[in-house]
Amino acid sequence: MERTSTPLRTRFSPALENIRMSPIVSISEEARERAAAFEAAGRTLVRFQRGEIDFPTPAHIVDALREGVAKGLTRYPRSGGEGFFRDAVVARMKRDYGIDDLDAECVVATCGGQEALELVFKLFERGAGFAPTWSCALENFVPHAGIDFETVPLEPDFSVNLDRVEAAVRGRDFFYLNNPHNPTGKVFTREELDAIVEVCTRHGVFVVSDEAYEQIVYDGLEHHTLARVPQENVISVFTFSKTFAMTGWRLGYAITRNRHVARLLRLGNYTQTAGVPAFIQYAGAAALERIEASRAAVDAMRAEFARRRDALCDGLEGLPGVRIERPHGAFYLFPDFGERVPKDLAGPERERWVYEQLMEVGVVTVYGACFGRHFTDHVRISFSATPVEVIEEGVARIREVFG
Amino acid sequence: MERTSTPLRTRFSPALENIRMSPIVSISEEARERAAAFEAAGRTLVRFQRGEIDFPTPAHIVDALREGVAKGLTRYPRSGGEGFFRDAVVARMKRDYGIDDLDAECVVATCGGQEALELVFKLFERGAGFAPTWSCALENFVPHAGIDFETVPLEPDFSVNLDRVEAAVRGRDFFYLNNPHNPTGKVFTREELDAIVEVCTRHGVFVVSDEAYEQIVYDGLEHHTLARVPQENVISVFTFSKTFAMTGWRLGYAITRNRHVARLLRLGNYTQTAGVPAFIQYAGAAALERIEASRAAVDAMRAEFARRRDALCDGLEGLPGVRIERPHGAFYLFPDFGERVPKDLAGPERERWVYEQLMEVGVVTVYGACFGRHFTDHVRISFSATPVEVIEEGVARIREVFG
Repeated sequence: MERTSTPLRTRFSPALENIRMSPIVSISEEARERAAAFEAAGRTLVRFQRGEIDFPTPAHIVDALREGVAKGLTRYPRSGGEGFFRDAVVARMKRDYGIDDLDAECVVATCGGQEALELVFKLFERGAGFAPTWSCALENFVPHAGIDFETVPLEPDFSVNLDRVEAAVRGRDFFYLNNPHNPTGKVFTREELDAIVEVCTRHGVFVVSDEAYEQIVYDGLEHHTLARVPQENVISVFTFSKTFAMTGWRLGYAITRNRHVARLLRLGNYTQTAGVPAFIQYAGAAALERIEASRAAVDAMRAEFARRRDALCDGLEGLPGVRIERPHGAFYLFPDFGERVPKDLAGPERERWVYEQLMEVGVVTVYGACFGRHFTDHVRISFSATPVEVIEEGVARIREVFG
Repeated sequence: MERTSTPLRTRFSPALENIRMSPIVSISEEARERAAAFEAAGRTLVRFQRGEIDFPTPAHIVDALREGVAKGLTRYPRSGGEGFFRDAVVARMKRDYGIDDLDAECVVATCGGQEALELVFKLFERGAGFAPTWSCALENFVPHAGIDFETVPLEPDFSVNLDRVEAAVRGRDFFYLNNPHNPTGKVFTREELDAIVEVCTRHGVFVVSDEAYEQIVYDGLEHHTLARVPQENVISVFTFSKTFAMTGWRLGYAITRNRHVARLLRLGNYTQTAGVPAFIQYAGAAALERIEASRAAVDAMRAEFARRRDALCDGLEGLPGVRIERPHGAFYLFPDFGERVPKDLAGPERERWVYEQLMEVGVVTVYGACFGRHFTDHVRISFSATPVEVIEEGVARIREVFG
């Protein structure tokens, strides 16, 4: 019998070793450390870094959770979603978007839109998507799935250069499209969406449409869901997190007419988590079905987000050398400070320069490099969890530095 | 511009394509189809195939869920678990097992024990474990992680042949050990466990200890957790599903003193699901902390499972040519019908023969091949969801066929 001891392995699968901690988490930790110093000086931090929402989940949804538990929905869930949940999604897509060719087999319930996107990325080997890119896609989904991912920068005004899209998708498996867009707040037009779908379809490429902010659209604009496209190369992902202030409930879903893909997502959902608790699905179905209460709650949140957006954009208007594209959706502003960054700076120092200037006056933002290697003179300013009076304080401090 | 259309991909990553639907799900579907015929003849099916539990979640845990939601625990959870949850686990391991060298960083909360095991398998490339093997490990975790997995058969009396274990683990990354064991109901002795840990440690191999049934042990036997082993090559996985009749809540946790592994599991948990809802963790912490109510509930369930175990084992005793090892844990009996299977049968027909004979009289079991390529003359009979009177009816029918 062998008696020598073999050393214990200290490096593991790249699927886990290559995941990076979200830089936004690091920023929040840094903010916690700085908060003490500010509070000692009688000031507080203005936290613009978060994607969290400061509203409570609407009461009728909380009530439904209690009802679901009381009904005994505490047994193993059906992976990919209970029948009642998937039926509620099918009805919701017809009511909200006029889509009438979906059935329950097209819907896969997941632990947040996160699990749906994570599983969809895992289907593929080679992807592309716009820059700036939601940091979780870059830092988590891409390395976890081990895929090769190319980014196509939006133009400086966040419009689409279709030739660059076409050059990027050729030979790839999928194009990741986040609409409304984090971090720019861009709402893609119907024409842009149709053109992107056309290019992808022509090249045999899937479109992965992340519509987390579908209900957070301002100025009377319409959200055009890709779930309406009756093609097998489209996978749309939705979540309850933003629409219903349910970030912590971990409920989302994918919609696809590709039966094979839907089956693989169900198998993946079973393998990873064995499904979403049925009582949470019950609360989610109620959010979709108790239409009047939900509409009132969503309208109130959207109106408040719009007030915050206006306070932020109006307040920052006319800052010299700062380019601002007013967001029409989501709850992020992504201004370009390129003309204000000292010309001689480069590398990580340059990437953090605006962020550091603002941190000095107690304003916490997310530096653009968190969203990929383009747009690194930008910062993301989130207004998801900051009331108007806090935004006004933040604006005043930003003007102190860059006014 | 290229105008030819590229065909759409129809095969995807092996991580998803190679997952197999659980054969137990197929058996349940087959049972549903046969139920109609039985009911038409005035008889019902006796369902011995399930791992579901027929008790409701204890009321004090349901109450705690309501409290957690009322406290506003509806925001993004901390991936890998809230502080209060991990503290409750640390306290529980000390109280229940006398383990006093753990801290909260050793604990990773996951969506069920399932997500913990799925992530742990994903750390590695080459594994081994006993046959028979929980079907989900074989059909889901192994192909999903893309690992090479070798099984080491238990002896006919389900004892351990340590030489075979040593031969199997040499050059591998981990050994998967499910104790108490599904499908045999075996409770490993302290000596067996120590020997397995010693062999694995000597060969630089991790031990992945799946202790889902830790509280379901009969006859005054003690469950020996591997969480007590103060070594970096041990990862223990626990769940609330079986102990507290919380199968549908999807809450579990991993414990390891290996900080790097704990960190990777947290990153994996964030990437896949962004964490477990905090209000569910709150209910789980209450299950661990409201000791008297929980102990009463668990004792009552264990006593009922023991009554069912006795009704089943006593009822089947003395069946000619059927070998029965009385289970001391979990809620499965795994009898060997090898002497009763016609000698000339082979292949899939042989594997399903006992199962089919029993299905003919309306008794639904799981055939041994669902747990790997050894023990294929066995069937698993679950008593997790069948009251004693149903078990007696089932026993009578089994005796009709094999008496």
